[in-house]
Amino acid sequence: MKIEIVTIGDELLIGQVVDTNSAWIGKQFNNSGFEINRITSVKDTEAEILNILKETSRRADVVLLTGGLGPTKDDITKVTMCKFFGAKLVFNDEVFEDIKILLKDRVSSINELNKQQAMVPDNCTVIRNPVGTAPVMWFEHGGTIFVSMPGVPSEMKHAVEGNILPRLISRFKSSEIIHKTVLIHNIPEAVLAEMLEFWENALPEFISVAYLPSPGRIRLRLTAKGQNKRELESSLQKVIDQLYPIVGEAILGYDDVSTVKIIFDLFIKNKLTLATAESCTGGNIAHQITLIPGSSNIFKGSVVAYHNHIKTGMLGVDERTLEKNGAVSKEVVEQMALGAKKSLKSDYAMATSGIAGPGGGSELKPVGTVWIAVAGPNGVISNQFKFGHIRERNIIRSTEKALVMLKHMVEKDLV
Amino acid sequence: MKIEIVTIGDELLIGQVVDTNSAWIGKQFNNSGFEINRITSVKDTEAEILNILKETSRRADVVLLTGGLGPTKDDITKVTMCKFFGAKLVFNDEVFEDIKILLKDRVSSINELNKQQAMVPDNCTVIRNPVGTAPVMWFEHGGTIFVSMPGVPSEMKHAVEGNILPRLISRFKSSEIIHKTVLIHNIPEAVLAEMLEFWENALPEFISVAYLPSPGRIRLRLTAKGQNKRELESSLQKVIDQLYPIVGEAILGYDDVSTVKIIFDLFIKNKLTLATAESCTGGNIAHQITLIPGSSNIFKGSVVAYHNHIKTGMLGVDERTLEKNGAVSKEVVEQMALGAKKSLKSDYAMATSGIAGPGGGSELKPVGTVWIAVAGPNGVISNQFKFGHIRERNIIRSTEKALVMLKHMVEKDLV
Repeated sequence: MKIEIVTIGDELLIGQVVDTNSAWIGKQFNNSGFEINRITSVKDTEAEILNILKETSRRADVVLLTGGLGPTKDDITKVTMCKFFGAKLVFNDEVFEDIKILLKDRVSSINELNKQQAMVPDNCTVIRNPVGTAPVMWFEHGGTIFVSMPGVPSEMKHAVEGNILPRLISRFKSSEIIHKTVLIHNIPEAVLAEMLEFWENALPEFISVAYLPSPGRIRLRLTAKGQNKRELESSLQKVIDQLYPIVGEAILGYDDVSTVKIIFDLFIKNKLTLATAESCTGGNIAHQITLIPGSSNIFKGSVVAYHNHIKTGMLGVDERTLEKNGAVSKEVVEQMALGAKKSLKSDYAMATSGIAGPGGGSELKPVGTVWIAVAGPNGVISNQFKFGHIRERNIIRSTEKALVMLKHMVEKDLV
Repeated sequence: MKIEIVTIGDELLIGQVVDTNSAWIGKQFNNSGFEINRITSVKDTEAEILNILKETSRRADVVLLTGGLGPTKDDITKVTMCKFFGAKLVFNDEVFEDIKILLKDRVSSINELNKQQAMVPDNCTVIRNPVGTAPVMWFEHGGTIFVSMPGVPSEMKHAVEGNILPRLISRFKSSEIIHKTVLIHNIPEAVLAEMLEFWENALPEFISVAYLPSPGRIRLRLTAKGQNKRELESSLQKVIDQLYPIVGEAILGYDDVSTVKIIFDLFIKNKLTLATAESCTGGNIAHQITLIPGSSNIFKGSVVAYHNHIKTGMLGVDERTLEKNGAVSKEVVEQMALGAKKSLKSDYAMATSGIAGPGGGSELKPVGTVWIAVAGPNGVISNQFKFGHIRERNIIRSTEKALVMLKHMVEKDLV
């Protein structure tokens, strides 16, 4: 079965908005054993929308469309679909009810534009949308199913999870697809590929492998395809078990999760608490931790010490040490970690101090120089890193490294 | 002239990676007066890559491809392009030099996989890549230009900015496209559209408008297309000037920049300093501020006070006030803002305290209840908000609201 995604909107083509909807849909469908064959983003002109409808109707069994259903004039998906499917717009009472309920607290009265959103094509199945003003439309045309959804991520997600995916699952028998991801830390891609050459050549036909590099780590993705889920799972597990003898300690984990999620699980499991003292990461470590639901169970807080008087005043860094070694130094970052652990009353603490750039570098300490320290019940350790010139990347890599250093310290302490 | 983007890789279709390359390319090309006509993401199988090469060669004048050029087995773009263009792979000494220089500090010796990256098709123009091991390939075929680039964002960006875009600009005369964005705060989309109906109907033919809603704000994008840049700019300015009498104070700014960038510019210009005391935003406000290069000129630091003892210990929140009103209250959040301003020694401070969810809500204070305070030289103000149930969205909306409150206070103080 061939499934395609079509996202509609000029904002995608001029780069004002990144298409995150497609990735989300791809993940959900894959988890249910469906493959997405292609993703296309088109402009919101009638000609382009008609073109892609015609093309996909020849190629695909299911076409999932998002975008262009809002109340404003630039939203032309609905009228264009009417043209393509030869439909007339009719007023739908149920949809109007939904709109009225939704807007009750938001506007003083329903205006004409919102009322028009209750007009729906007369030859489609209308799927009501309780979280937005545009309903979902399900067309069947010449053997292809077209589902038109709002582009607002929360509305699209609600429709896919609650209705569209369950409908497609009950109608089409899908084959099983299983992905497993092995997280590998700090080995360059080509070196890893050479290490894994024999292992890769010995993989069974139905298992494929892909390398996904990102700052500081590689996600090794294994995909197994077939009919029997249990057999696929045990085959995958067998080849994954062969990796540790080859790659060893560089394996960070066996799920496609962020390093911060690995830390969260480790701290929850062992009832530990955490704090951060951040200079160059500017609160990003705290932010990444607190994005996780339930993080208040492990996270005490953070001192973002951008200015030196905060390092001395709130974290107890010694003024002479600071003057002698500078803020970006082993001595200061270790005192920051120990100070955070003490004053925020946590079991462990991470500290960062570096030159994120683009300005502020010197010959001795160029942009990208970062000191990271981790403090725990058995003392403090620190490392210096040389990252690159790009500010955002330096913040991300510093965050990642701090978390990996913390993971190693906690695992050692737990032995 | 028709330009298309093709991104290659299973990771895009199964949703393991979001395609940010296309948005970035779209933005750069648009700024140079080129329009992107379509974006397609395909799987990295030979059949799919050949299909899209065939299709785009019929439709487009320029096709920009990214991905599938790495050293590992799943990267098949290069050999597939050879097949499509009838090319043979030949060893390129210059490319091999680049690879050796790049890997000098990273690996002990160049392995066979990296050496293979110096093999290039014999009928393309090779564009050297100093920041990665895969070169860029430029093919011309039946009137269409195909440019194959690495999928690693930093390598792709380097090639587009340094080589591909300048080449295309010097070869094709492009028409002028100008975008202007007006940021509007806190008006629902359909209400705004109704307010702007007459204005929209009176727009000249060559100016189009689009509504881009995101949590808490709408970006109103105006696009003018024509030959004379100066004329387009003055026409756009004229219609934008008509907006203030209609929309008034809800206009947040006239550039497509984040609210945090507006704050940064305001603080730099007036030599002001800032601090934050964050509970429910967990460091995100500090993180958003410190992503901006030069933020150390305005930002003192932050106390992320997840646990109550940090609110009392580091921010001077009164224990009895905390006990009596709870952490999510007007009294506590105001004391947090005043405490941060005082102990972090800044001119202004923002504080947040709320229930980000999904847990922790009660009947009186359901998930999504957030108190935000802003303190400045003339005192402190605070507001309560009721956001929704989604943790990440609550963090983003709280950040956005805190920044807007701060902007209003500072502007008032400056009058």
